[in-house]
Amino acid sequence: MSEEVIDTLMGHKSIREYKDKDISDEKIEKIVKAGRQAPFVSQMYSVIMEKDGDIPFGAPVLFTICVDIHKLEKMMEERDWDLITNGLTLLLFGIQDAAYMAQNMVVAAESMGLGTCYLGSPIWTARRLKEKYELPDKVMPLVQLVIGHPAENPPTRPRYPLDHVLFKEKYPELSDEDIEKAMDEMDEGYLEQDYYRKLDAMISLIDDEEDEFTYEDYSWTEHISRKWGQWYEDIDRQIDILEECGFDIRE
Amino acid sequence: MSEEVIDTLMGHKSIREYKDKDISDEKIEKIVKAGRQAPFVSQMYSVIMEKDGDIPFGAPVLFTICVDIHKLEKMMEERDWDLITNGLTLLLFGIQDAAYMAQNMVVAAESMGLGTCYLGSPIWTARRLKEKYELPDKVMPLVQLVIGHPAENPPTRPRYPLDHVLFKEKYPELSDEDIEKAMDEMDEGYLEQDYYRKLDAMISLIDDEEDEFTYEDYSWTEHISRKWGQWYEDIDRQIDILEECGFDIRE
Repeated sequence: MSEEVIDTLMGHKSIREYKDKDISDEKIEKIVKAGRQAPFVSQMYSVIMEKDGDIPFGAPVLFTICVDIHKLEKMMEERDWDLITNGLTLLLFGIQDAAYMAQNMVVAAESMGLGTCYLGSPIWTARRLKEKYELPDKVMPLVQLVIGHPAENPPTRPRYPLDHVLFKEKYPELSDEDIEKAMDEMDEGYLEQDYYRKLDAMISLIDDEEDEFTYEDYSWTEHISRKWGQWYEDIDRQIDILEECGFDIRE
Repeated sequence: MSEEVIDTLMGHKSIREYKDKDISDEKIEKIVKAGRQAPFVSQMYSVIMEKDGDIPFGAPVLFTICVDIHKLEKMMEERDWDLITNGLTLLLFGIQDAAYMAQNMVVAAESMGLGTCYLGSPIWTARRLKEKYELPDKVMPLVQLVIGHPAENPPTRPRYPLDHVLFKEKYPELSDEDIEKAMDEMDEGYLEQDYYRKLDAMISLIDDEEDEFTYEDYSWTEHISRKWGQWYEDIDRQIDILEECGFDIRE
């Protein structure tokens, strides 16, 4: 049996530098069709494609993958049904549909030798995207995806040890040693690749504290700790953003 | 260029009948490793594998893919950081991580000739799974995935027309004709496959209304209208479930 699919999945790396070269309509169609064939709860997604704007990393195409309840509701209207599912549950299902679509697009694109990179910002910048793309109510941009011809060839990035992601029959008690082992695997892996220095991606300390880290020791676990230890504190803002996109998740 | 990856993605169909045949540890490891290599926000997921229980459709393996903030928080503790990101934003990112993992597992398994089927119930039955798998706080079961050797070979299922999922530069005004065209495509496709009759999957009308549909005309748009028109109304229940899993999404 050929291992081409496994090799494609195992070979994934995010690409942050692209050649100034367009992607043919035929290829785009193939990528989106592959995404469309993912398993879904109810096809609650839409994809906006942008080719003319100022796209990150010099990529030729930017996709914005959205949770889309607008189309569902319109369809239900045609059938004389009112949508009664609450906004939160819809969101929990709709995000899955959008994410399965997005991930199939990533795999399809990479199988064609193209590079990809997700941009996670939409859930926090949804207002701007809603305006820009004229998104109707109940359409929420979830994630963006750039695709293009890679102008860099980085190694695949470290991941948690297998026994830190796959648990058999029940969730184990994780000891300090388990946690440290996973942290070491990640930190040593990223340091070896000099990842953060090359990207110049150190997150500053907000508190004006003196920063004792340099790119000699700043690695993955410190990076994500600074993210989730300093960012996105305000739940009201997140609730408001969802509400402006037409998802009321208040009791 | 070989099209093996595209063919695998395009060939997806959910399998609901399995042979009584185990999957080797080697194959399971390959599937989970392929999932682990997906692009992530911060690897905020875990997978519980069950092989001994009463697994739907007679499959040999059931995976429960969870959003996992527990491991993240433990790691941040080791680094003397407090997690300050609000529970809702964490959830919006964490679901993406878990879904990318899950979808890569689907693609990997199908490339090996195995069948797969997602079960979307966990977000509504999380309490039971939390107890069963001894999930710690801040671990939320998102979706389950059965994998096994297919004992049926259904056709691929219909999808929305391409111009109903991919929009260029902006979200269009959808006319009644656009909506009806997409509905026809779905309904005719499923009727042609006699899908709902074979599964005996008609959703009853809750209101004791007389049901005018039979399997001659009951199809996809009626099916999903009955789902989202009758189920999951209670947002308090969904909020409580999330809270019991350690995600406080109240203001």
